[in-house]
Amino acid sequence: MDSARRTVNINMNTNLSQLHHDILEGVCDAWTALQQQQPLVHIMTNAVASNYVANVLLAANAAPAMIDNPFEAENFARIAAAISLNLGTPTSEQVQAMLIAAQTANAIKKPWVLDPVGYGSILHWRSEVTDQLMAFQPTIVRGNASEIGTLAGKQVTGKGVGTTLDSSEVYQQAKSLLAQCQCIAISGESDYIISQDYPVIKVMGGSELQPRVTATGCALGALIAAYSAVANPVIAATAAHLHFAIAGKRAAEITSTLGSFNVAFIDQIHLLNPEIIQQYADFELL
Amino acid sequence: MDSARRTVNINMNTNLSQLHHDILEGVCDAWTALQQQQPLVHIMTNAVASNYVANVLLAANAAPAMIDNPFEAENFARIAAAISLNLGTPTSEQVQAMLIAAQTANAIKKPWVLDPVGYGSILHWRSEVTDQLMAFQPTIVRGNASEIGTLAGKQVTGKGVGTTLDSSEVYQQAKSLLAQCQCIAISGESDYIISQDYPVIKVMGGSELQPRVTATGCALGALIAAYSAVANPVIAATAAHLHFAIAGKRAAEITSTLGSFNVAFIDQIHLLNPEIIQQYADFELL
Amino acid sequence: MDSARRTVNINMNTNLSQLHHDILEGVCDAWTALQQQQPLVHIMTNAVASNYVANVLLAANAAPAMIDNPFEAENFARIAAAISLNLGTPTSEQVQAMLIAAQTANAIKKPWVLDPVGYGSILHWRSEVTDQLMAFQPTIVRGNASEIGTLAGKQVTGKGVGTTLDSSEVYQQAKSLLAQCQCIAISGESDYIISQDYPVIKVMGGSELQPRVTATGCALGALIAAYSAVANPVIAATAAHLHFAIAGKRAAEITSTLGSFNVAFIDQIHLLNPEIIQQYADFELL
Repeated sequence: MDSARRTVNINMNTNLSQLHHDILEGVCDAWTALQQQQPLVHIMTNAVASNYVANVLLAANAAPAMIDNPFEAENFARIAAAISLNLGTPTSEQVQAMLIAAQTANAIKKPWVLDPVGYGSILHWRSEVTDQLMAFQPTIVRGNASEIGTLAGKQVTGKGVGTTLDSSEVYQQAKSLLAQCQCIAISGESDYIISQDYPVIKVMGGSELQPRVTATGCALGALIAAYSAVANPVIAATAAHLHFAIAGKRAAEITSTLGSFNVAFIDQIHLLNPEIIQQYADFELL
Repeated sequence: MDSARRTVNINMNTNLSQLHHDILEGVCDAWTALQQQQPLVHIMTNAVASNYVANVLLAANAAPAMIDNPFEAENFARIAAAISLNLGTPTSEQVQAMLIAAQTANAIKKPWVLDPVGYGSILHWRSEVTDQLMAFQPTIVRGNASEIGTLAGKQVTGKGVGTTLDSSEVYQQAKSLLAQCQCIAISGESDYIISQDYPVIKVMGGSELQPRVTATGCALGALIAAYSAVANPVIAATAAHLHFAIAGKRAAEITSTLGSFNVAFIDQIHLLNPEIIQQYADFELL
Repeated sequence: MDSARRTVNINMNTNLSQLHHDILEGVCDAWTALQQQQPLVHIMTNAVASNYVANVLLAANAAPAMIDNPFEAENFARIAAAISLNLGTPTSEQVQAMLIAAQTANAIKKPWVLDPVGYGSILHWRSEVTDQLMAFQPTIVRGNASEIGTLAGKQVTGKGVGTTLDSSEVYQQAKSLLAQCQCIAISGESDYIISQDYPVIKVMGGSELQPRVTATGCALGALIAAYSAVANPVIAATAAHLHFAIAGKRAAEITSTLGSFNVAFIDQIHLLNPEIIQQYADFELL
């Protein structure tokens, strides 16, 4: 049992209400630690997402750095506090960099997040790359229900890089992935965070507008990585999902059109604090 | 005569006023179909545009997917409802992917849009790639007056990737391109949509601020592709141009500075509906 | 002494107050010239920055064009009014294009700006590329204190692509770089503009929110290039830094959250004019 797991050596018989309270405290502590440490996050993401991902992480007070060439990937993976790899628009050169970074992260036990965008039968190449990356034991795998479901062996048909499955249908199957990673996060209308150490955590909130801003999922993956530099994998994933769900809900209270929502969402990512977390956090343990 | 043309077998002697009415109805129907079908659009675009293009298409309720590597281009072109190729910042690998997607689209009669950004004498490489792509018979070619004028054989001098020609000077010459495509759309202060089946459609509106937000032309090309999944090429091009012209005009009623305009423009892309189309659509038949 | 330097053949004994006045007039004239000439700026920048850089330059009324492939770099460098090269997320192909553009710019005495993002001991590859680019004598080198300090031979430890040094600690050492370029601009809480022809110019203003919008530094580099097409290197660098400092200060008067700040900043880049420059410009000569 590695040290991260030791710290969350939860007795599954603990009163769920107490555990819910402890998780919420852990999320607030993770937010505070993120503000204090501003962890350097090594990010390789897609062309659509890169600007947005960087702005989301800066709004949350992390320090994003997009280094995605194979000549610098190992060195940078060594100095970063966490790593986030996203398969949205891979190039041959970027894929080389991802494999080097993942191998390095695994070798030196650096937390890293894998977002297998578009995993499935249509997009062979990235799916094969994802399989190679999985061998380097990501700390956390996050994706939508189609991606995680397919990765877990349930053959489904995704609509391009979106999803046609509901996250609630997939989370039981996803547990098979825990042989290769410590935590799985499935985003959807509700989000599911799956691990061996906690019950399944179901996060509610957000807004129906959120999936209509591009790259929100990609930014969420990078934010999970940022939190994984300051908290155990499950608290990190939960903190990032709550950060997004709360910001999305509050942004949707302000506006209902997509241009304004995008602005309000970054504002609310920036404005989050423990009082807002305590007031808005909506999750349950399954 | 292929099936798309059969459906618009317009008698050119039809009363122009009736035809204007029919086009406007067609545009409203295309908007409604776009909301219902949310077509998957396979997009290869430039590094400047990718985030913006995705957000414009999501605001319009299409489903954009940027897949621009040669290893997945054919598979994805087969499942997409339409394809949009843009030559803004080509890489060697992306060019390979574009040629594969265009060849696939042509082979299986999938609608696809070509945006020959920067076509002309200065930028040889992309111009040669564009010539190769033209051989795969794009459904619609869209660009500014310099690009379309040069492509149609009129040698002009563009200012980089902007334009020094007025669209009104070019649209007659552009008809020569109808040997290779079904529809040509020229954007400018007024836009011109050229085909064999309809009179030239001149679209007015928009805002002088629009060209000062980067990638609006690139997003327009991808939106034409989205509409081409649910309407014939001429209605698709007209619907996309009106969508932009109306959103631009309405956004400029709200603000006159560029940061705010960018936000308001996405809001108005999102807010469009048939009532707003009927109220604001400004086009004439030449 | 080349012609650019002749035009600023300042007698260092000139009354500093008069010189301050002359610089401010020069900045206002540069802004006016930028509006009139709308110079075409050939930009190679990183994946995170490209959309934002283009929008900042359009808001300032320059004409940005991102041409970053090796097959078109020479031709485009020849027709552009200025060139901006940024090492944020280099690819092998983009690096080839940068070397060609820099060589061309040096050969034909076209003003060009180098932004050595991440220069230092961790990121070897880009640092070696930067060294090669330096041999082509950039007109202006701009960066943060870590990058410029390291480039000037002072070994420091940067935090990824951010900075851990204060610009005030570095500007004396930076003068050694004047053997290879005409002007050095160091951005930070205050900015320093260093040359042989003027005293050190220290620019104040901006907002603490500015570094928390990604790619502001990258956009600043490209804006310096735009101004270098219409003014001597020192006035160009000062004009761009004042443009940013004033827009940042005014945006922060409007809002204190990052999503809204990003919008307000572009609005204020757009709204700048000589009256606002005269009212808000805050700089001193050291």
